[in-house]
Amino acid sequence: MLRDDERLDYLLAEELRIIQSPSVFSFSLDAVLLANFTYVPIQKGLIVDLCSGNGVIPLLLHKRSHAKMIGVEIQERLYDMATRSIQYNNLEEKITILHDDLKNAPDLVGREIVDVVTCNPPYFQDVPKSEQNQNEHYAIARHEIKTNLEEVIYTSKLLLKHGGKLSMVHRPGRLLDIVTTMRKHGIEPKRMQLIYPKVGKEANTLLIEGIKGGKSDLKILPPLFVYNEQNEYTPELKDILYGEG
Amino acid sequence: MLRDDERLDYLLAEELRIIQSPSVFSFSLDAVLLANFTYVPIQKGLIVDLCSGNGVIPLLLHKRSHAKMIGVEIQERLYDMATRSIQYNNLEEKITILHDDLKNAPDLVGREIVDVVTCNPPYFQDVPKSEQNQNEHYAIARHEIKTNLEEVIYTSKLLLKHGGKLSMVHRPGRLLDIVTTMRKHGIEPKRMQLIYPKVGKEANTLLIEGIKGGKSDLKILPPLFVYNEQNEYTPELKDILYGEG
Repeated sequence: MLRDDERLDYLLAEELRIIQSPSVFSFSLDAVLLANFTYVPIQKGLIVDLCSGNGVIPLLLHKRSHAKMIGVEIQERLYDMATRSIQYNNLEEKITILHDDLKNAPDLVGREIVDVVTCNPPYFQDVPKSEQNQNEHYAIARHEIKTNLEEVIYTSKLLLKHGGKLSMVHRPGRLLDIVTTMRKHGIEPKRMQLIYPKVGKEANTLLIEGIKGGKSDLKILPPLFVYNEQNEYTPELKDILYGEG
Repeated sequence: MLRDDERLDYLLAEELRIIQSPSVFSFSLDAVLLANFTYVPIQKGLIVDLCSGNGVIPLLLHKRSHAKMIGVEIQERLYDMATRSIQYNNLEEKITILHDDLKNAPDLVGREIVDVVTCNPPYFQDVPKSEQNQNEHYAIARHEIKTNLEEVIYTSKLLLKHGGKLSMVHRPGRLLDIVTTMRKHGIEPKRMQLIYPKVGKEANTLLIEGIKGGKSDLKILPPLFVYNEQNEYTPELKDILYGEG
């Protein structure tokens, strides 16, 4: 069941397993923070995860929602890992992964029928090829090579119902691009949370949720610190990471 | 020297005095936070404070800069308090207060010659008159009656040199209006700090600095907490308030 240098890692204190590979893709803390931040419909509905990678977001959200979930991943190798993880956890009825470009998602999934779109997109734009990761799998996951912020947000707008939510993780340096692009496509930023590596440091991660057709009023949630002064995870972060919250 | 119910309060651990009146205007914590957040030219230059109230911002900034400072205040009563505070502190050579509508500031002060514009503007828009403060002085200071965000930012753009900075304090709910209006007028948001009343609470105050003609790249500074769990000021806040920092 495992290929090459893949590993079967634990997710959420041993409740779930996920296939990862250090040479291809491992989910990051950012994905866990995004899943934790995202509001989900509990009883039913449809959640779409764009740039799904090895499927970590739907696997995490599954614990909190009975909604159907669809992940969209352009890289065949990651699509394959995600699909096998879902089989391993016996979640084929609930989670589907599509191997396609996210811009085809509205045609494949349907328009204006999705309750929540999540996305942990590539963060970096305009980096010369020489400075990108030499590993193509990582380069595509990290740099705006196959998609970009505008396309992610425009695609989300097509997928979402009126009142549906787009939930993203990104770098604080892109905040202004995110909010102006969301507003351009009728998605109003409503909740934001900043992640600081530790007390006294600048924020290095941004979580943001917009509502399609929402009214203007942004809430900024309490800040989250990753490490304490001893460089250990803070109690809040342990709760999020190990599902003790 | 003091009129009616005015008081002569201390500023910055007894180094300065400021005239206040509970029935007309008292400076707020927000003004102190804004002054603390603002980068100022040290040796020379020109700083303009819009919506200057009783002149608290130039009085505070004066300790950190040899620049000339001009406050602009539309309310005669506050202009008068500010002017007398400046006289009391013997700062007439350094700080001037203009009694005028801020939109006349570019004609009075000059265009594209200012290094830093600061502003602690009215926060609230679209509130019915019945819900505004019945005290006209407070209503004008708090509600967008005599000016609004668009006018403050447009006026700042006219005043500022290329590379000059606009530094504002506002409510987090207006963040998106602020950043989109700044960008519309060629002022790029570059530094932001969020103020949280205490750990675990949503942010209630926003400090933001934009640079005229700046490149896109927003830094989010470490968060600032006002109170600790015992509802006392945090050490960081005491430093800022009492000038021990």
